[in-house]
Amino acid sequence: MADRYTKQEKAVVVLVENFYKYMSNNILVKNKISKSSFRNMLQHELDHMLTNTRSREAADKVIQELDKNQDGCIDFEEYWSFIGAITGPIANHIREQEQQSSS
Amino acid sequence: MADRYTKQEKAVVVLVENFYKYMSNNILVKNKISKSSFRNMLQHELDHMLTNTRSREAADKVIQELDKNQDGCIDFEEYWSFIGAITGPIANHIREQEQQSSS
Repeated sequence: MADRYTKQEKAVVVLVENFYKYMSNNILVKNKISKSSFRNMLQHELDHMLTNTRSREAADKVIQELDKNQDGCIDFEEYWSFIGAITGPIANHIREQEQQSSS
Repeated sequence: MADRYTKQEKAVVVLVENFYKYMSNNILVKNKISKSSFRNMLQHELDHMLTNTRSREAADKVIQELDKNQDGCIDFEEYWSFIGAITGPIANHIREQEQQSSS
């Protein structure tokens, strides 16, 4: 990690690296994550956040959306927007938690 | 920060907190960031990443897009997708950097 990166840049790198961690090894599916890997990623990497009902509902919605087009995998842009879709509804909850833990 | 959070969850919290850090204090603009604050945020929080030409081009494109509708501010969803738009083009670059620094 570039040492001089800011906290926000390091956070972005963590989420980018997470995409590559779950990326398909199938050469036909370059730079994409399979849907099952995405579900797997949610359970392993975002499981604490998903205990919150609002984020659990958001994640379920995201996964249903994923399954609409049964065909493909998820590229980086979709991966990023899905995480945003799951995080959005709980952004206030995250903020309250942060304010409690820092007060 | 919930101590048991994974690395990915902590990264999400950092980016959520960053949104609140730049959020407008204007009560009329609840839970939004002004465009000038967003530009300011790019310069202060993502400046190392923006030295990469591809991310600089992506950031300029994002800012031009921002200015299309001169009216409003940026909500969490737009904030999140803008960071994804800036990160996407350099995701490969980030990965190569990571592989070099860990090899």
